[in-house]
Amino acid sequence: MTRKIVRVEGQRVTEMVDLIVSEYAVTVKINQQEFVTMVCTPEYVEDMVIGYLASERVIRSFEDIEEIWHQEKEGFVHIKTKHINPYYQQTQNKRYITSCCGMSRQGFVFTNDALVAKKMDQVHVQITTEDCFRLMYAMQDSADIFKKTGGVHNAALCDVNGIVLSRMDIGRHNALDKIYGYCLRNNIRMEDKIIVFSGRISSEILLKVSKIGCAIVLSKSAPTELALQLAEQLGITTVGFIRQQTLNIYTHPQRILLPANELKEGD
Amino acid sequence: MTRKIVRVEGQRVTEMVDLIVSEYAVTVKINQQEFVTMVCTPEYVEDMVIGYLASERVIRSFEDIEEIWHQEKEGFVHIKTKHINPYYQQTQNKRYITSCCGMSRQGFVFTNDALVAKKMDQVHVQITTEDCFRLMYAMQDSADIFKKTGGVHNAALCDVNGIVLSRMDIGRHNALDKIYGYCLRNNIRMEDKIIVFSGRISSEILLKVSKIGCAIVLSKSAPTELALQLAEQLGITTVGFIRQQTLNIYTHPQRILLPANELKEGD
Repeated sequence: MTRKIVRVEGQRVTEMVDLIVSEYAVTVKINQQEFVTMVCTPEYVEDMVIGYLASERVIRSFEDIEEIWHQEKEGFVHIKTKHINPYYQQTQNKRYITSCCGMSRQGFVFTNDALVAKKMDQVHVQITTEDCFRLMYAMQDSADIFKKTGGVHNAALCDVNGIVLSRMDIGRHNALDKIYGYCLRNNIRMEDKIIVFSGRISSEILLKVSKIGCAIVLSKSAPTELALQLAEQLGITTVGFIRQQTLNIYTHPQRILLPANELKEGD
Repeated sequence: MTRKIVRVEGQRVTEMVDLIVSEYAVTVKINQQEFVTMVCTPEYVEDMVIGYLASERVIRSFEDIEEIWHQEKEGFVHIKTKHINPYYQQTQNKRYITSCCGMSRQGFVFTNDALVAKKMDQVHVQITTEDCFRLMYAMQDSADIFKKTGGVHNAALCDVNGIVLSRMDIGRHNALDKIYGYCLRNNIRMEDKIIVFSGRISSEILLKVSKIGCAIVLSKSAPTELALQLAEQLGITTVGFIRQQTLNIYTHPQRILLPANELKEGD
């Protein structure tokens, strides 16, 4: 969208036309029942909804969906299901209480996350620190100038050769839901994949990475403590603050091949 | 929190101790019923909950709360109410449909937002572009280095003289809910106040500003189209991309005093 704005540069005032990022509200109806309303960037909306429903344990796979159609102008995505998790409404947004049973999983806040998150311990993909810099650069390069300055989040699904798929959204987790939905729809093999993300690795983002089924997440920004607790437990390698020639490896460093084999003790 | 990490700088690899931002999950119980679980930065949690409940139209004012206590270690905030909106559960997260009645308000996605948002047309606060630069600088300066690099959102309540209150959070709207809760608790006069925010002005952020009752919002980043539609309608002045000596005025420019009175036509 374009819009007339007043631009001030020092003492100079001009009226000009500027490009503004869109925000689109879409309500998901499952078998004609209102389920959720999401605010997003209006691209790949169906993929986002599929990724979100799998992430929330409403569906287990793309095959559970019989029909999906996007009523674009009105702002609805309609889903008709073949199979549906009969308990999804009871567990939606419910606090996961770890106290009594033997299956307690530390660090989980929501019940659905504890049930959907995958353990990555058995995934043996490895990349070098040079790959980390190169993939981060490729992800940033794939976003155009407007996306770079417009405050949207960029996410990319990569393998060691480069970007497989790149998505952006004004919502942090929407970009990852778009990737997740695409992968479910197209049966993408995940064992050798890596997620590259422009923003901070919060617990929510880490959980999305685990649900998508990636063992490595690369970020330009910082992780949170809760995200790192979950990453430890789920066997996910987190690399943050990837800038120029520096990066930090926070968890499961065995998947990152260091430039020299020697590790020096710092402060 | 601190944590051992592996730091890579070019060919140099060191093991060091790094500071990691906390993420804290808190479940709000209203009169012993679970209402919502929020993930936030563990500071000013009670204020955040009060701001959130007012924003969601569960309470109308701080006086509706009889008791509030924070069970910190267990991650609960308990609220006992004197008065409560009897309909709050029916409208929570419900899509606002504008079709049939005469009161339609364009751009609103959620019913509660349409009911809580305040119109600011009658608020006549004015600031200069110099004030915009100064207040943005003060807000950024008030965040310490860790907050600046750690990917948290900073928000400040200001008047023309400077910062009144500054809050940060890993969640975009939590920082504003913390400000809102403080203002409700302390009966802060809002007519002369300004919100300064580190992140993008999405519709959600614009609505929070309106609910708090501020007529001007300043941001380092971009607004979205939906946020600007709402700002037009609610009479809020939005100023974005405030960097060094440049800024963009998007809506209701009458509250911003320009460096020269003349406005030149640009491209």
